[in-house]
Amino acid sequence: MLSRRINCFTAVNLSKTTQSVARYCSNHNGITEPADSAATTAHEVSTKQELYITDPISPGSIFFLPNGTKIFNKLVSFMKLQQQNKHGFQEVVTPLIYRKTLWEQSGHWDNYKDDMFRVEGNDLSKEEYGLKPMNCPGHCVVFGRFDRSYNELPLRFSDFSPLHRNEASGALSGLTRVRKFHQDDGHIFCTPEQVHQEIQKCLELVDMCYTTVFPLSGDSNKPAYSLTLSTRPEKYVGDIEVWNHAEGVLKNILEEWGQSWTINEGDGAFYGPKIDILVHDHTGKAHQVATIQLDFQLPERFDLKFKDRDNSYKRPIMIHRAVFGSVERFMAILIDSSKGKWPFWLNPHQCMVIPVKTEDEKIMQLANRTVKSLRAEDDNPKSPIPLNTFHFSVDIDSRDESVSKRIREAIKKSYSYIIMIGDKEVDSGKVAIRTRESKSIELLTIDEVFDKFVELEQSYK
Amino acid sequence: MLSRRINCFTAVNLSKTTQSVARYCSNHNGITEPADSAATTAHEVSTKQELYITDPISPGSIFFLPNGTKIFNKLVSFMKLQQQNKHGFQEVVTPLIYRKTLWEQSGHWDNYKDDMFRVEGNDLSKEEYGLKPMNCPGHCVVFGRFDRSYNELPLRFSDFSPLHRNEASGALSGLTRVRKFHQDDGHIFCTPEQVHQEIQKCLELVDMCYTTVFPLSGDSNKPAYSLTLSTRPEKYVGDIEVWNHAEGVLKNILEEWGQSWTINEGDGAFYGPKIDILVHDHTGKAHQVATIQLDFQLPERFDLKFKDRDNSYKRPIMIHRAVFGSVERFMAILIDSSKGKWPFWLNPHQCMVIPVKTEDEKIMQLANRTVKSLRAEDDNPKSPIPLNTFHFSVDIDSRDESVSKRIREAIKKSYSYIIMIGDKEVDSGKVAIRTRESKSIELLTIDEVFDKFVELEQSYK
Repeated sequence: MLSRRINCFTAVNLSKTTQSVARYCSNHNGITEPADSAATTAHEVSTKQELYITDPISPGSIFFLPNGTKIFNKLVSFMKLQQQNKHGFQEVVTPLIYRKTLWEQSGHWDNYKDDMFRVEGNDLSKEEYGLKPMNCPGHCVVFGRFDRSYNELPLRFSDFSPLHRNEASGALSGLTRVRKFHQDDGHIFCTPEQVHQEIQKCLELVDMCYTTVFPLSGDSNKPAYSLTLSTRPEKYVGDIEVWNHAEGVLKNILEEWGQSWTINEGDGAFYGPKIDILVHDHTGKAHQVATIQLDFQLPERFDLKFKDRDNSYKRPIMIHRAVFGSVERFMAILIDSSKGKWPFWLNPHQCMVIPVKTEDEKIMQLANRTVKSLRAEDDNPKSPIPLNTFHFSVDIDSRDESVSKRIREAIKKSYSYIIMIGDKEVDSGKVAIRTRESKSIELLTIDEVFDKFVELEQSYK
Repeated sequence: MLSRRINCFTAVNLSKTTQSVARYCSNHNGITEPADSAATTAHEVSTKQELYITDPISPGSIFFLPNGTKIFNKLVSFMKLQQQNKHGFQEVVTPLIYRKTLWEQSGHWDNYKDDMFRVEGNDLSKEEYGLKPMNCPGHCVVFGRFDRSYNELPLRFSDFSPLHRNEASGALSGLTRVRKFHQDDGHIFCTPEQVHQEIQKCLELVDMCYTTVFPLSGDSNKPAYSLTLSTRPEKYVGDIEVWNHAEGVLKNILEEWGQSWTINEGDGAFYGPKIDILVHDHTGKAHQVATIQLDFQLPERFDLKFKDRDNSYKRPIMIHRAVFGSVERFMAILIDSSKGKWPFWLNPHQCMVIPVKTEDEKIMQLANRTVKSLRAEDDNPKSPIPLNTFHFSVDIDSRDESVSKRIREAIKKSYSYIIMIGDKEVDSGKVAIRTRESKSIELLTIDEVFDKFVELEQSYK
């Protein structure tokens, strides 16, 4: 059973008479081990691979360097593709600052204020805003703006907006304890009857992610993730029958799912029960990633409704869910788990080309051509690079150093592949390619290498 | 010659003794016609196509609805591909809030303060931040963090961060006068010798964009864009010889470019001369989009340096450039120019499938299969959707209405293609497809339609 400190974002307390602690959306700092362990590894790997920096000029906000940005963008691209083309999400881009009145309506201003940044104009009007810590109220605004019909539901919004939470400066650490972060956030507006199927679909996405694409656990005998149900807390809002029904639904889903799960009695959010998903890295360490939360409160507070078949207006239920949780924290988990040995598709150092004799013109020509082909660069200033094309992160090491030293250094920098080009390669037109892990060499044409790399990226290897 | 009001972002005045108005980075509100014209068209098209909404809860910030988000994301994807794989840019993701000291160092706090949002924690510490109106100081932090060598230059950072500028609330209007926007922003750090080539490359990207991909002007006899050089203003900072040299470089480049250009004497930024690029839509209306600005000041203020061949430290020159300018404003220009008749690749309504007899099971089966195939959806919960795959925005209209009415409505909603499926199509396995503009019908297999659509997207048609 997990300690409460996993849920480190104390959040909205909508009821002034209670002091119950709630958590809207996923908690992005939920690492069970001291955060510093993951943070230290991430810091070391980042320094070696130039992934990101932090700076006191903006405490808790990450500066992603080009290599870190590549990983960040790949993770987001992966999630967008799954959400939009398999799970029916529609992406929206919503504002970052909202007038105080929104946060009053949602309950954040009363209860989450200390964790929020206040924004105001420097001009005379001095309008007062809050910098968003969560996307949910913005999505309620979008839902509420239109007359919604039952046949639009379930309506699923996804959003990758930067979020800000004013963590105490002493607690800030690398990618894991931050003030600015991005969630693979999503909110589903649905009818009570649709809750079952929607949560099941959320679990399917979680399962695909952590079983197929990010198998963090090295032990194939153990489940790739574990599930926890958090039930009605002592201080709760809403109707107890609705709670019982909702908990029953979640229990049924977990039972059907067929994988063992634990229960955290009384640890649900005050507005509804939730399922948290934890993954275990190869050392067995547990990290909370995904969350699926039922919410009966925000739809009430924003007076959201849809027109049902019988023309009566009904209240939708809201599901808050995230799969990675915080993308920044998920990157830290990946770094900690892999020690920076990225799978090819995520690696900002995908391939190093090493010309054996750097003074040999023909060798250098072939080496440069290899780099250019694998990067799929196009110098023609008139023709645009087409959409959805592959461009691999390939470098060349043409320093006047021994081949073995250059290979050693490329491996140290975790290049997935190393291509060596010498006289034989010039003669045959095939290049010698090896992996980070194995010395065994394959001879391939540049096109064959390109196809191999496409295959790896497309299958998230 | 353009009026000064094109440059509506009064910006940093680094010299306390002068009152000269400067403009860091591109001006995102630079529409020469009253902004309301474009804003009105954009508003009308947006309402019909559900592209975006605004709300007093966040004045001047756009809520992009799913359809608007699709266009926004496509524009950004296009620009990232060109910048990274043709022009050597490296994307970074940088913080949104920075301590006051950064803005003091850059000069914004003294001179741009009224246009900035101030941010502070609600907790006891009450640290004071500025919400960034521009990316340049953040990029200076990244440049300055590492020991830079001459062989790293030119170093080109791109960034798509949301930016905030506190425009007066009375001036806010749709996509064109906003408080939150995104630039296709880039900063090039280079040696004086590299300035010529770098600016030439910037112009090449501008040229490719506005000649090949976004040919706004319907008149092929006229140039797709026009160029203006803004020279040293009365109040300037720096050495007059450096100015003369820089202006000479820009003039040479413009002369070499071979297209006529105009001069705005004395209209440069106080920190350096600049080239502004204007496009003309089919009505002949001019809109400022791209900008290329030389800057000798920020490298000085942030004490940026690189180690030259001779081991001495030298100051780099900074080029601020954007091609779209504000993505939001560029969308407004596209909407105004096309009246919402998007080219296929940008269209959130790419294709409407119309089953001729909606009660016919075989017809409905083929219609649904067509939709699913063109969306390239995959329900298999176990297998991820691969990276860089095509997923077209295809809808089905299976209402019990006449075919002609449904076609009429699809055309009204600006669907690029309409596919009709009846008995003949079920028998032949080919679907009948027509464009928005022409009644002539082509018979194609679903795979052929898919390939046709891929071809259109890849060539930005």
